[in-house]
Order: sequence, then C-alpha cells, then structure tokens
Amino acid sequence: MAYDAVYDKLKDECGVFGIWALGQSEEAANFTYLGLHALQHRGQEAAGIVSTDGTTLHAHREMGHVADIFNAEVLGRLKGGAAIGHVRYSTAGASHVRNAQPIAVQYAGGAVAVAHNGNLVNAEELRAELEQSGSIFQTTSDTEVVVHLMARARSAGSAPADPVDRLVAEARAALARVAGAYSILFLSQQAIVGARDPLGFRPLVIGKLKGSWVLASETTALDLIEAEYVREVEPGELVVLDGKGLRSEPLFPGQARPERQGRCVFEHIYFARPDSVLFGRSVYSVRHALGRELATSHPVPADLVIPVPDSGVPAAIGYAEESGIPFATGLVRSHYVGRTFIEPQQSIRHFGVKLKLNALKDVLRGKRVVVVDDSVVRGTTSRKIVKMIRDAGASEVHLRISSPPTAWPCYYGMDTPTRQELIASTHSVEEIAKYVTADSLGYLTLEGLYRAVGESRQGYCDACFSGDYLVQFPRQREPRGAGLRVVGA
Amino acid sequence: MAYDAVYDKLKDECGVFGIWALGQSEEAANFTYLGLHALQHRGQEAAGIVSTDGTTLHAHREMGHVADIFNAEVLGRLKGGAAIGHVRYSTAGASHVRNAQPIAVQYAGGAVAVAHNGNLVNAEELRAELEQSGSIFQTTSDTEVVVHLMARARSAGSAPADPVDRLVAEARAALARVAGAYSILFLSQQAIVGARDPLGFRPLVIGKLKGSWVLASETTALDLIEAEYVREVEPGELVVLDGKGLRSEPLFPGQARPERQGRCVFEHIYFARPDSVLFGRSVYSVRHALGRELATSHPVPADLVIPVPDSGVPAAIGYAEESGIPFATGLVRSHYVGRTFIEPQQSIRHFGVKLKLNALKDVLRGKRVVVVDDSVVRGTTSRKIVKMIRDAGASEVHLRISSPPTAWPCYYGMDTPTRQELIASTHSVEEIAKYVTADSLGYLTLEGLYRAVGESRQGYCDACFSGDYLVQFPRQREPRGAGLRVVGA
Amino acid sequence: MAYDAVYDKLKDECGVFGIWALGQSEEAANFTYLGLHALQHRGQEAAGIVSTDGTTLHAHREMGHVADIFNAEVLGRLKGGAAIGHVRYSTAGASHVRNAQPIAVQYAGGAVAVAHNGNLVNAEELRAELEQSGSIFQTTSDTEVVVHLMARARSAGSAPADPVDRLVAEARAALARVAGAYSILFLSQQAIVGARDPLGFRPLVIGKLKGSWVLASETTALDLIEAEYVREVEPGELVVLDGKGLRSEPLFPGQARPERQGRCVFEHIYFARPDSVLFGRSVYSVRHALGRELATSHPVPADLVIPVPDSGVPAAIGYAEESGIPFATGLVRSHYVGRTFIEPQQSIRHFGVKLKLNALKDVLRGKRVVVVDDSVVRGTTSRKIVKMIRDAGASEVHLRISSPPTAWPCYYGMDTPTRQELIASTHSVEEIAKYVTADSLGYLTLEGLYRAVGESRQGYCDACFSGDYLVQFPRQREPRGAGLRVVGA
Amino acid sequence: MAYDAVYDKLKDECGVFGIWALGQSEEAANFTYLGLHALQHRGQEAAGIVSTDGTTLHAHREMGHVADIFNAEVLGRLKGGAAIGHVRYSTAGASHVRNAQPIAVQYAGGAVAVAHNGNLVNAEELRAELEQSGSIFQTTSDTEVVVHLMARARSAGSAPADPVDRLVAEARAALARVAGAYSILFLSQQAIVGARDPLGFRPLVIGKLKGSWVLASETTALDLIEAEYVREVEPGELVVLDGKGLRSEPLFPGQARPERQGRCVFEHIYFARPDSVLFGRSVYSVRHALGRELATSHPVPADLVIPVPDSGVPAAIGYAEESGIPFATGLVRSHYVGRTFIEPQQSIRHFGVKLKLNALKDVLRGKRVVVVDDSVVRGTTSRKIVKMIRDAGASEVHLRISSPPTAWPCYYGMDTPTRQELIASTHSVEEIAKYVTADSLGYLTLEGLYRAVGESRQGYCDACFSGDYLVQFPRQREPRGAGLRVVGA
Repeated sequence: MAYDAVYDKLKDECGVFGIWALGQSEEAANFTYLGLHALQHRGQEAAGIVSTDGTTLHAHREMGHVADIFNAEVLGRLKGGAAIGHVRYSTAGASHVRNAQPIAVQYAGGAVAVAHNGNLVNAEELRAELEQSGSIFQTTSDTEVVVHLMARARSAGSAPADPVDRLVAEARAALARVAGAYSILFLSQQAIVGARDPLGFRPLVIGKLKGSWVLASETTALDLIEAEYVREVEPGELVVLDGKGLRSEPLFPGQARPERQGRCVFEHIYFARPDSVLFGRSVYSVRHALGRELATSHPVPADLVIPVPDSGVPAAIGYAEESGIPFATGLVRSHYVGRTFIEPQQSIRHFGVKLKLNALKDVLRGKRVVVVDDSVVRGTTSRKIVKMIRDAGASEVHLRISSPPTAWPCYYGMDTPTRQELIASTHSVEEIAKYVTADSLGYLTLEGLYRAVGESRQGYCDACFSGDYLVQFPRQREPRGAGLRVVGA
Repeated sequence: MAYDAVYDKLKDECGVFGIWALGQSEEAANFTYLGLHALQHRGQEAAGIVSTDGTTLHAHREMGHVADIFNAEVLGRLKGGAAIGHVRYSTAGASHVRNAQPIAVQYAGGAVAVAHNGNLVNAEELRAELEQSGSIFQTTSDTEVVVHLMARARSAGSAPADPVDRLVAEARAALARVAGAYSILFLSQQAIVGARDPLGFRPLVIGKLKGSWVLASETTALDLIEAEYVREVEPGELVVLDGKGLRSEPLFPGQARPERQGRCVFEHIYFARPDSVLFGRSVYSVRHALGRELATSHPVPADLVIPVPDSGVPAAIGYAEESGIPFATGLVRSHYVGRTFIEPQQSIRHFGVKLKLNALKDVLRGKRVVVVDDSVVRGTTSRKIVKMIRDAGASEVHLRISSPPTAWPCYYGMDTPTRQELIASTHSVEEIAKYVTADSLGYLTLEGLYRAVGESRQGYCDACFSGDYLVQFPRQREPRGAGLRVVGA
Repeated sequence: MAYDAVYDKLKDECGVFGIWALGQSEEAANFTYLGLHALQHRGQEAAGIVSTDGTTLHAHREMGHVADIFNAEVLGRLKGGAAIGHVRYSTAGASHVRNAQPIAVQYAGGAVAVAHNGNLVNAEELRAELEQSGSIFQTTSDTEVVVHLMARARSAGSAPADPVDRLVAEARAALARVAGAYSILFLSQQAIVGARDPLGFRPLVIGKLKGSWVLASETTALDLIEAEYVREVEPGELVVLDGKGLRSEPLFPGQARPERQGRCVFEHIYFARPDSVLFGRSVYSVRHALGRELATSHPVPADLVIPVPDSGVPAAIGYAEESGIPFATGLVRSHYVGRTFIEPQQSIRHFGVKLKLNALKDVLRGKRVVVVDDSVVRGTTSRKIVKMIRDAGASEVHLRISSPPTAWPCYYGMDTPTRQELIASTHSVEEIAKYVTADSLGYLTLEGLYRAVGESRQGYCDACFSGDYLVQFPRQREPRGAGLRVVGA
Repeated sequence: MAYDAVYDKLKDECGVFGIWALGQSEEAANFTYLGLHALQHRGQEAAGIVSTDGTTLHAHREMGHVADIFNAEVLGRLKGGAAIGHVRYSTAGASHVRNAQPIAVQYAGGAVAVAHNGNLVNAEELRAELEQSGSIFQTTSDTEVVVHLMARARSAGSAPADPVDRLVAEARAALARVAGAYSILFLSQQAIVGARDPLGFRPLVIGKLKGSWVLASETTALDLIEAEYVREVEPGELVVLDGKGLRSEPLFPGQARPERQGRCVFEHIYFARPDSVLFGRSVYSVRHALGRELATSHPVPADLVIPVPDSGVPAAIGYAEESGIPFATGLVRSHYVGRTFIEPQQSIRHFGVKLKLNALKDVLRGKRVVVVDDSVVRGTTSRKIVKMIRDAGASEVHLRISSPPTAWPCYYGMDTPTRQELIASTHSVEEIAKYVTADSLGYLTLEGLYRAVGESRQGYCDACFSGDYLVQFPRQREPRGAGLRVVGA
C-alpha cells in the first residue's frame, strides 16, 4: 500500500516549484531548493531540480529529503537563472530514482523538463496507444506519458517557429489528450510553462520575487523565499514565464469553463500546510472553521478538547472556542520518527503509533475528552489513539472528525487505499465508533464542510466523501509496469 | 558555540537509558534503541549502545540520529540481555565519534561501559591530576575522567571479591572524587549500576518492564517500551540492577543529605518532553501552570495568545486560559529542518528562523498578539520572531517568557553561551524589549516560577536565573583538549 | 577527454555477459556478477544486471566497480534463471547513472533489456530521425537508439505471434538500421538474443555451463564460472538462448558475407585480457609473437628487456626470447591507484605516472635497456617513463612498441583522443623518439602485426593504424545531447 | 584468522611514515598521504594521519584504503608542516576504527601521537601490570601500551625541561619496558622521534626531501615523493627530527649491540615492494637471486618457468635465467579483486583463487612447468594453483618455493596462522608435495636463502623457518581484549 499505512493517513502525491529569473539571478536552483524545502510535506520520497542557463538543462534527482539531496556542490552544478523542481511522495512499490522528477528529455530539436503534481486517469490507455505506435517507456510514471505526447505533437504537425510558442503548442497538444488532475510545469531553455487542468484539482499559485516570476504548489514556498503571493493559476489556465515576464492564456482556447470545478477539498482538510493560502483562502482559518462547525453539529459534554497533532490542532482550537470546552495538549508528538524501526519481539501494544505519539496521563486522567482528528481512513490508528487516551486515564473519549466519512478512493493525485480498506465505505458511523472504541463519533456533513470552507460545492471535488467523480475513470486501474521492475537505478 | 545558536535555544547535553534483563530477554539492545529514540530530543549529535551477554561487552557508537545509526544488522551484533545507551548533544567544537558514549574500556580484571548525563565542574583538575600520575586521555569528555578514577580505585585498594560489589565500590570511589552534575550508568558483565549526584541536577527514573528493571533520563522512554514508571532515582542514590533485581543504596553512605538540592528547573521549562513525569511532576502541567502564572503577573489587553512552537504551546494554553484571551496558532513550524542550508546570496530576511517558522497572516492581521516563549538567550531569534509576527500584520506584539531572565551560564549539563552573550546579563527587561522590538515583555519571577512548579526552591537549581551556583566551580573553565584535536575519528 | 589521459592509454568501451538457465538455476544474477567481474578491465565506470524469472525483468545499475555495486542483498533482488549484464567505461563527460546499461524499457506488449558493446556511426542521424517522428531520449547512449528502433519495428508491422520470434524480428529490424560496431545482447522474459555486426568489430563468445548457455565479451568470463568455451559468435551471426537451448541464424539472412571483416586488432594488442581466447586465438600467444616480431624488425644491442607493466609483459618476454637479451622487471606497478589524488604543490616530477610505476634502480643502473610497451597515444606518458628509467641510471633507453603507430581515431568502440592529439598523426617516428627522449624507437609494421597475429588482414580492422575505415562515418560526429545535461541521476 | 586465508598469504602488519618540515612546508599531511599510498601493500584495513602545526595535533583515522580515506577536504583539515601516518593490516577479529593508528592522546602536559609497526611479545604482561596500577584501555592494540608507559614515565620522574628532550626521555623509558619488534614514530608539537628495536625486526629508513627529513617503512615511499634515500635507521637507533634537523642517538645508551640482529628475512622474500631498498639491499635483486639459488638447488627438466603473480615474478625470472628454461606468464592476475564475493551455490572449483588468477591454457598445454612461488602457508592455495595449471593442460607441475618451509608462527609483526595450521610444521616436503599434487616440490634451505640475500644469518631473524626466536615470548599468547568487544566504533 502506498498511502501512509503506519499512521493511517492519506498522502498527497507531489509538490512543484518553478522560477524564471534568467538574466536577473544566477540562483534559480537555490530558490527552487528553498521552495522545495517548504513543500517537503507534499512528498518525502524523492526530489529533483532541473535548471537552465538558456543553453543547457542541468538536472539532479535523488531519493530522499530535499535537505539531504542538495548541497552546495550539487547546487553549484545546477547553473542558470531558471529552474523547476519537484518533491515526490513515498510509496513501497515504484520507489526508485528512475521515477523521480522532473523528467528531462531530448526530443525533436529541443530539450524539456517536466514536473507534475496530479494523476492522469487515462495514462494506461495513452501508454498502451503510444507503445503500439512505437514509444518506449523507461519509468512507470504518468509524466513520461505527457512527454511522449509532446514529442508526438511536434512530429505530427506544423510547429510554430518561435521556441516559446512551440513549447506552449506542444504542452497544449499533450494536455489535450490527458484526462485527470494536473498542475504541471514545463521548462525549456526559453521559458517555463505552467498549467492547471480545467477542473483545477491540484493547487498552483503565482508569486513575484522582485522582477522575477515564481510558480509553486503552495504559498508557503513563496513566503520562505520572500516572494509576494499574486494569485492562483486558474483551473484551465496556462501561464508562460519567460524574458518578457508572465503572460496568461486559456489552456484550451475556445473551450467553455466547466460548470463545476474540482479543487481538492482535502487539501484544505489535511494536505496543505496551515500557513498556506489555498484556492484563495487561509488554510488555518478554514480548519479552524471546520472545528467550529464540528462543535455545532456534534456537541458533547466534556472537560477537554485535544487535537491529534499536528494536523488536528486548528480544528481542535475551533471546536474548543465554539464549545467553550478548554483546549489542551493531550498527545505529544515525536519529531524524530525515522523510516524503519526494529520492533522488539516482545509485543508492545500500538507500537507504530507509540513511536510518534504519547499520551499525557496527567492531563487526561479522569477527564471526558473530545479528540479532534482530520480524517479516518482504515480506522486502525484511530483505534490505537482512542485506546492510548483511555489507557492514560480518560473517562470518556469522543472522537470528532473535521471532514465527512472517507468512503471513496481518489484518482486525482491523493494516495488512498482500496475502497475495501476504507472503513467508511463498508461501515456505518456507529460501527466505526464501535470499532475505534470511542464513546461517540462525529463527522462533518458535506454541507457543514462547505459552510466552513465558506464556498459553494461547485468549485470543489469531494469524490473521496461523495463518490461524485468529476472525471470519468476509464476502467479498473491495473498495476503499471508489469513485466518490468527496476530495482535501485 | 555549542548551544543552538541558529534558533537561540539552550541545549540539554545528554540522555541515558539502561535495561537489565539478562536471562529474561535477548533484546536489551532493541529496548535500549527504542529508549534512546524516545530521548532523542536530549541529544542529536551521536548515539551509542553497549550490551552484554554476561561474558562480553558489545559496543556501537556513531555520529547521527538514533534511527539512522541502528539497523537490524547493528542491533543483531549487540547481543545479550543487558545494555546501556546514550544520546549526545550537538556541538561544533568537539564533535567527533571518539567523544561518543557509552565509553567502553578494559581495566584491571574487567570491562566496563559508562554513560553519563551531566557536567563535572572539577573535571579539568582531576584530569590534570590523573595525567600527572600517568593517565592518558583519548577523548575530551568528562566521562573518561570517571573511568580513570574507577581504574585508580581498583588499583588503590582492597577490592571486594564479588564482581558486582567491586563495580559498586569502584563507581562510588570514582564519584566521590567528582563534583558537579551526573546521572550516570555503569555496565559490567554482572550488573548495571546507576547513580545520581547528591544534588540531583539531572533527572533519572526507574521503570519496570515485566520482570526486568530499567533506568532512563525521562519517563517518556518508559512509555515507549511500555515499562511501568516506578519512581525517580533520588539525588544521592545508587541503584544496582542485576540478576537479583533492583536494590538501592545511598551513593555515599553516612553522608548527610544536603539541605538544598539541585534539580534543574530548566528541565521543566524547556528540556524535558512534555509527556514526561519529571522529579515527580508532569512536565506538561508545570508548563501549563507557568503560563497561568505569567498571565497573572503580566496581563495585557490582547486579541490572541500564540505560542512559539512547539515548546511554548503548554504555557501559551495556560496563559490563554488564565487571561481569557483566545489561544491560536500564529506560527507554523516545519518539521523538515536539516543541518545545513545553502542561503541564496540575495538576502532573505530572518532566513534561519524562516526555515523553521512561518507566520499565519490570516490569523495575525490587525491583531494584538501575546507571544509565549520559554526563554530568551541572546535575543536574536526573539527579535526575528517579533518582526515576523509584525510583518504578518499584527498591530501589537507582547512577548511573554515562561521563565525568569537567563543571565548566568550553566555548569551542570546545560549548554549555554558565555555570560557576555546572554542578553539578560547585560540588559534590563526594558532594554531587551526594545532590542526584540516587542511592545511589551514579561518574564516570570523566581517566586512565580516555583509557584507554578508547585515546589519549594529548596529542591531546585536555578543558577541560570539567579547565579546561585550550588556546586562551586573551581576556576574559569578552560578549553579542554588544547594541543590535541581529533578530526573525524 | 574520455580515454585514460592520465596514463595515456586507449580504453575499451564496454563488456557484456548473458546467461540463460531458466528452470535450471536460480542464480543467473550471481553468474552474471562473476562474469562482469572477469570483464571489469573492459569498463570501470558503471555496471548493471537485468535478470528475469520469466515474468518480470529485475534491474540494477550503478556507478562504480562490480565488486562494490553488487552485494548479497542486491543480488537477492535480481531473481530468476536468466540475466544479462554490462560494464561501462569511464569518461568525464557523460558519466552518470542514467547512461548505465543494460537499458530496460517497456514497449508495445513487452519488456526488454539491452546491453551493448560497440559504437554506432549513424546514431546521431537515427536519433534525429526518431526525434523527428516523435521519440524522446532520456540518455545520451547509442543503445537507446537501438531500443527505439525495436519499438518502431513492432509498431510498424505484422509481428510474429511467438514472443521469441518477435524479439528476434525486432532485434533484427533495429540492427538493420544501424551502422557500426555492435556485440549486443537482448533479454526478454522468454529469451536472450545475441548478435554481432557483420564486420564483427567487437568480440563475443559462446560458452556452455552444464546444460545452460552463456554469452560473454571474452573467454576469461567463461573460465571464472567454469563454463566451457564453445566458439565465438560469428560476425553477422544472431544466436537465440531460450528454453530450447541455443540456435544460430544469420543476422541478416540473404545478405552476403562482406569480403573483409573488422575484428578489432587492438583487442589483441591491448584491450583483451591475456588469458582470453580472442577471435579464436590466445591473446597471450599473440602478444608474445608481437614481441618476437618486434625483436626481428627492430633489434638493438642491449643488456635488458623490460616491459611497461602489466600490458607490455608478454611482448617483452617474446622480444627477450627472440633477441636473447635477458628479460627483467625494471618498473614496478602499484595496484592501489585510486581515482583522484591530491597533488602536493611542491612539484613532483612525473607525478601521475609515479603513483602507478616506480623504476628499479638496482636493476637498471648502467644498463642499456629495451622497454616494450603496447602503444603510444599522445606520447606524454612514454616520455615520463623513459625519463624515469633514465633517472634510475639506465645508460640507453630503446623504446619498442608492439603495434604500428596509432594515427587515426577509432569510431567503433575504442575511446581515442582526437586525431590532433595522436602524436603519430602529426609526427614521424624520429620526431616521436625525440619527443619521448628515447635513444631509439621501433614500431611494428602492419605486415609484422598480422604476421604475429597469424591471420590475414582481411579479417581485421586496423583503422587506428591505417585510416582504412571499414564502415563509413556519415559526418563529423557532433557532441550528443547538446541542450540536455543530466548531472547525477 | 587474520592472515590472508583466502589466498594463503602471510601478511605484514603495518607501515609507517613521518615528515618534519615545520616552517618549510604546509603540506606535511599531503606528503604523508602519498607516502602511505606507496606503503599501502603493508596494510589495507585502516589508515591514519596526525599532523601538527606546532600548536595542535590534528588527527584523522578511518577504515579503508588510503586513496578512499583522504580527500582534499580531510587533508585540508590536517594542518601543519609535520605529520606521521600509518597503514594497518586487515584482520577479521579486531577490525574497527578504534584500533586504527596513529594513536593520539593527551597526557601530563602534552599531546603525542604514535605510529607503530611491529609486535610486542610482552604486551599482555605490561597491559596487566598497567591495569593493576590503574590504567584503562580503550583499544586492543599494543601501541596503547607504549603510550601508557610514556605517560607513566612522565609521572614517575624528573622530566627534562626541554619538550623535545622530554619526548625522547619518555619514548626511551617506554621502549625500555617493551620486548619484541618495533619500528615506531612519535609526534609531538616539537618533534618527531623515530626508533627501531635493538634487533631491528621491522624496516625503517631515513630520507631527505629538500631541507626536510623523512622516515618511512620502505624506500618506495621516498621515491614517490622524490625524497632522497639516506640510509636505514639502525637497529637500536633513535632519531630526532625537529627544527634543528635530524640527529641520531643510541636508543639505549650504554647497552651493547646484540650479537645477532633480527631483520625480518621474510620482508625480502615477500612483504616489501620489489622497488624498495631494504636493509641496504635491493629487494628485486634479492628475489632474483633467490630464484637463481632455487634453480641451482632444485633443478628439473622442464619447458617453462612461470611465476605465481605478482610476488613470484623476480624469483621466477632468476630461476629461468639460471636454468636456461624459458620464462613465461602462465597465470594471469585480476586487479579488481574486492573484499567479499557472493559465491554461486553451484560449486565452482577453487573459487577464491579463480577470482584472482586464471591459467593460460595456450601457454601451458602439454608443457612441463616449473611454478615459482614465494612461500607455502597452509598449502590450500598452492593445491588450487597446481590443479589450475594441470587443468590448463600442463603435463608436469614442479613447484619451487623461494624460501624454506614456513613452520613456525611469527611473534614479531607478521600475521601467521597457528603452528597447527602451518602445513610445514606437521608435514614433510614429500607430504606437502603430495598434498598440493605437485610432481615435485623444492624449497630453499636456510643456507641457500642467506647465500641469495648475500648476508650472514647473524643480521636476520628467520624464526618462521627455524623456530629460533630471538626474543623470548613469555607465554602462550591469549586472545586480547576478552570481555570487551567493540563493534563498529
């Protein structure tokens, strides 16, 4: 399983960053490195940067954390005033450096690097089609499909003479073929092109750093480099960053804006950093409001409101404020959790969770406790947390979830277990409460969710809660790359 | 400078862990590894484990984090049912693996490993004396002095025939010569001996894991391995863990208990994990009470109370509760801060702090904000934090510190800059407020501090606030190891 | 420069190994690892193995030496009874793991891995053509061109139903497009296909290990795994290794055998290991005969014959035998020469050569010395060696080269500097003698060379000596991959 | 077992190098690095350098080869104009970085680093005595004993005021207590002191590099840095290198020169590099003479003389010359043999030897072959080599050994298996011949050995052949460090 099974958390798939400052700075790779650092929460498996000095693309990709991969020597080799970067999520299966991004390739007459956040629902079909017409695949990532489509676009037709126009034309041609979620950056020696799919599943924002333009998955990356947040890239918008500045175009000119858009509401609930401004709204404030809404819809007499740290904190504060019940820290989180742990044979209960969380007996003893978490996936961790709180002496444990029940897998860039494993797809709220051994359990409704977000549902995707898939998924996705497994590099 | 200059934080010097389960378990190294993991906050520079199977001592020490140093293969080589371990703080100067602990040596007739948390004030004198009588030193750590004293004790006198009695006698003889702070563990093939100096500067607790006994710096290490917390090792107590169980003796029989003891009050304020029970009191509850006390003594009209995360959280909650001002998250902390960062030349303001913290503009804009932190060392980081909050739009920034002004260096195991660098040693509170650009600044008084701790000052050392040094420091400490510098190993 | 500029040696570009033992052994990766170990002299930059269990291809490629890359854990992951492997030469330019082989890709309906020794003279043209029709390139290696051609072949036509036939058909179709030198292995889940270009530039031999078949660049790889040497793969031959055993076909059925073939005569002179049987002849014996021939054609009165170790040894023995002058060791070679050396500022003469070679003063003092080496490339190292021998006290130094003057670059898989840098392309033998400060200098003639080899020139390529290029090189080769430079991975 | 069991070779234990150029050069560490590189054959397990700038000692020690351990950054930290270095042999048992040299310690009033080649026969006794009087041991190396004795010497008595005189006095006092073999270097901030035990077991030579003085185990280290070879340090001589140049003293003034000295004759036979001048004689020439002697004493009708490469080459050339039988290369050696190999389960005969050596069938087929090797330890490898040669088609295999039968363990710095394992201690020459399956076997006699060396036996130790131990070994050596095993660091 690819999602964080140890802590039962859904995972975002990626983060992207790009800056065009050619002629103004020689530090594009350094800024990208900092931007990726601020986006590290969006993917901890691998990271990469491709820079350009206007002549050559310089690339470095590696497994690991941003701070470990890039040192002065590596950054020194990533020359030039423009760069794009990528952080990638951690999965068990296809975890190897060949799948790291940005992908950098050479094709008819040029070089391009691509960094992609999202998930394509027709990648398998396109891949099969491309293979049938002679393409070879060296990775199992969707992004390689996009690059092939760009190359085919070039070979197909009458390419514009101007290299920037050509890049735009090819990016557009490739994206016209794919369905699904993408916030994607293209880098050539002449420009960065950024685009967001027409429904806008994944975030992408525009920033300005002195005279230069920046694109990033979240505003927190802009804050770190002290770039000014300008606005989000609109769903269905394409932006070009080059020597002339930033210009915007419709991704698919002439195509009508879809009635409903698909911004991922789960970014607000859990993925995005609380200090980001997402889809124009402060993530912290939304989470705080989710907590207030939860207090209104699921009140319970209690002595304390505690969060499951760190993601549950803003909602727990909101719940506490709305309910008047004191907010407290009841669970302490360790910040030194590494990859693999050697478990003693003598069984320790709730071992995985214990490495990360410990309960404060002194705070919890004899108390009726409201525990606020952002979501329940399989229920296994919630069960351990409830048990841990009760073992610490709490007399009652009321679990409050600042989102509706997660009952449907995501096909648009969030890493979910199968439908069978999502406890809410097969169990009622009462059954889940029983399973996690909570005295009571309350979820938000979809209505409550959007009330807190402060926007109409029309702008958002909530398929993981509702099953309303905005982009049709062609068929049961099969394991990619069967027949080819690359161990290591 | 050895303390955390980047984030202007004092640092604890070490953590220790020991378990005697010989004959009951073959997993002493695994439990020690987990225990050290829970104590990682007490030292991130290096870690080590020495185990015994009753015949041989097996040692492994390395630079780095616990989770990176110990893998299945290394733990597999650390055979046996008993082990002690150590985590060490990070400093610039003497940072090399030769100084990693536990120290393991062979001396007259036996082998012993020693893990030490604390600081000896007469180490230089003893070292000089030992060198004069022919000892050689291969490290610059105080602990090597203790081992030499043990070896000299053995050569000096009529050693008991029983190996456990002999170990106790030698440990006692060595500790009788040293002055200062020590919570220390000794491991031989026959027993673990643990001891705490008569004033009890550094913590040390006893736990029970099924039939086996455990010693650890903090109770959080017991929680992780599901050992039961029994009690603290008393100041001036010596405990023996061996096949017969646990037995307690006075460290120096016949010596009167000192009128005042020296538990480090700063452990309560900042060092210990909030989920630990320290000196018999819940750390979280003490910090919460410190915040309440601060609200009482330094009230101010404001819209929000925010902590400097993570350490300021409990006191901020306490402040908010007592004052009735809403608690909020105004600063978000990144958990992916690595060792070294490549700073862009184009200056970014408050860069070091920005990597770790970001302000929530949406929360802070237009608000009068109370910021709660645990201490101010040089003032540099506080200044950056205040600026960051103000840049985010706060109309007023009132800094509240949940401890008295830190004006004196510690010689008992806390890593402090020189007196000249401690801003409170040379500046009044008003001057500090001005330097950090806060609208107001409030510290706790010593009286307020102990009111919150809920104990008399008689049991505690507060030299860093008061300059009342409980153990005389012979002379200005000189740099150790002059004339010998070991690069690498 | 890519050839070994430090020691002024031409370098071979690669070695390949393959074994098909599916159903008979689970150790194909282990045997391949040993085979690559025996071929390590053919490439020290990178190595890789791709194995198959009949279902999946398992790959591992890394920079470095075979013995460092593959450990028990990595080999354990390379499951299955069939495998191919590759060692790659070391160059400054395109030295990164993306260029390591075997290349493993997925294309229409299947997976294939390819390992290639040789050099294609029309790779740039094919690459341009493929890019024009929509292919993307992720490496700068010729081998990726071959894989694209296979994929295009499949998409083009009516592929056979049988997967082995299909692999053969596609390999044949791809190789029909390329010109130049190739000894190449293809691995699918169903078979290994091996082929050698019609002129047979690079070696490739067939071995038998119990019931299984093996292919390798040199027989020394067979010796190590105790496989029996069967014969070489003929120029223009294609062999299939699968469950039915080994079968042979013409690579291009119906195509006439070229009048002249192109076995690389330099393999005999320097590249191949002396314990290999190459093109049906013992390498050691050929080199020994080269030395005899040299003694006949360039006799000189002298006291000693010494080799430049290790490659000059057999020819020096032959020279000594033929001339009756005693053979001696006059230069000692260090076997611990690493990659990079920190040179002292205080200039040391002939530093690079000194790290590798030292002269035996006691042997050389006052002697007239014949020094036998295999070739002179730029002359810089020969000059240092002559100086070193003279500094050791030799009264005369007569340099004898067991090959004709190297005056032309190789385009068929040998790594040479540019024509301008080859001293023999711009200097007469007398001028070279003067430059290297030898008392006399003798090269073999082409006639002498083939007399010693014992074969007609019709079977060999000697373009590096004669400039007679057997395959036309389309145009001045341009730097590949301009516009895309991948640093690291 | 510590000696090279895979290839059945005795191993030298160490090499040392020192240079005093304070005030003349800032590159002492660089020169030491090069010197150690040239001495790498004397120890491949670990290496270290300690330098001084006159104020501080800077140390770096690590496991591995010289070329891998020291890079520009590490050498940059090893500041100063004087340095000593050490390479250490590879053993299974006590192989960890704590045992790497030079040892660097601080003791009464100063710092000293010590690098030692040799073996002390009374180390265990001294260690026990030192432990009894209170010393602690952190390594299992003999060298730590020497350092303790120096420290005790200082504490014992009236030390000279001058720091160089003091270092000399202490070194002398320490060495007066030890028995056995030592060529040893001491480095303080003021001087290097070098000494060789009165019998002179291990080599040590003096060189001059411009105005600076150098000490090294072998002259090959002088050649590489272009230092001039001056002479050997005499057995029982002590030399001081400091700002005043080099001065010589008797190690133990007043003590008579022993009648017989103990230069290790095995250094001539195998250990030293053939390009070294050892004990005043060229190693290559001695080995060449050993071969001639062997031909005289053990003639046999044959077609070829072949060496076991590389060490057997000079003696094989000598044998060929004396016998008139042609010299040939019959075995080829691989230079890429790594540490550990993953052996296929399907048994490959003589696997370990095959990785290193391969037989030339074409050369050996049908021939009567004389194989010249330097020694036979357990006979296992000789047996494999004979078999390999016979399998290659040789009709007769006559093994000739350029030394007498190795029948006794060495206690003076050579790494030997136990007496029981030495085949010559329990088997007659005929029995050994039968075991190794040679048609005939000839060893040198002691008389023949010294005839070839060209010196009287009075100057040499040949205990490994004769059992005449020149320094009494107190008692059966017990495993050192029992009760303490340090895994890793």
